[in-house]
Amino acid sequence: MPGRLAHIAVAVPDLDAALAHWRRLPGARAGVAHDLPGHGVRVAFVDMADSRIELVTPLGDDSPVAGYLSRNPAGGIHHICYEVADLDAACAGLAAQGARVLGAPRPGAHGRPVIFLHPRDFDGCLIELEQAP
Amino acid sequence: MPGRLAHIAVAVPDLDAALAHWRRLPGARAGVAHDLPGHGVRVAFVDMADSRIELVTPLGDDSPVAGYLSRNPAGGIHHICYEVADLDAACAGLAAQGARVLGAPRPGAHGRPVIFLHPRDFDGCLIELEQAP
Repeated sequence: MPGRLAHIAVAVPDLDAALAHWRRLPGARAGVAHDLPGHGVRVAFVDMADSRIELVTPLGDDSPVAGYLSRNPAGGIHHICYEVADLDAACAGLAAQGARVLGAPRPGAHGRPVIFLHPRDFDGCLIELEQAP
Repeated sequence: MPGRLAHIAVAVPDLDAALAHWRRLPGARAGVAHDLPGHGVRVAFVDMADSRIELVTPLGDDSPVAGYLSRNPAGGIHHICYEVADLDAACAGLAAQGARVLGAPRPGAHGRPVIFLHPRDFDGCLIELEQAP
């Protein structure tokens, strides 16, 4: 389904503490943390009724979320990820409409190709697009 | 459904520009802007496949999003809103688990009672809970 919400990513300073925070929400089902060394992050998912929170904390010295946490030490909403039916076509369509695609597709947390869109083109919001299964 | 995602709110400096930005996303259906003077905001919804973006910009001199935009002039993700089956019970349950509920329930954008949870208790994320229909 084009535009299906894959997850809302939240950068957190302490993943275990964050899991304890988010599992308090009504209907929340917290998963277990696992390392994604290739992405420089440690993640855990919290499934809500019809959406998913991806809790993300830095792993290693060159993590893509380290800069965000240095600016927002308490954490915060880092990005929104939507699925698209055809990632290459989506990128071409967005570029044709003036939205900047950051870099080339690369495997995301689920192994499927992902890209990010420039936050300046979406009112300060970082948007990830993920190839649908 | 407890924990259903009601919307992701994005604070924006220019609502018309933001609608033009967000309607570029694959599958997006942009609504029309309307004023909510009682809430000090002007809003427009962008419906994605299975979720909703609420674009919010200040209206008047005492808007609840003015402070956010002064810290984030380009805009950004302001809060996440989940529905709950029983707002009073949800507030009591959260408070019993140490999550601070900010103020008393008051009518939200859809006329149903809403409350906000303290961002410090959810890793820097502002969470709104809305009484389900």
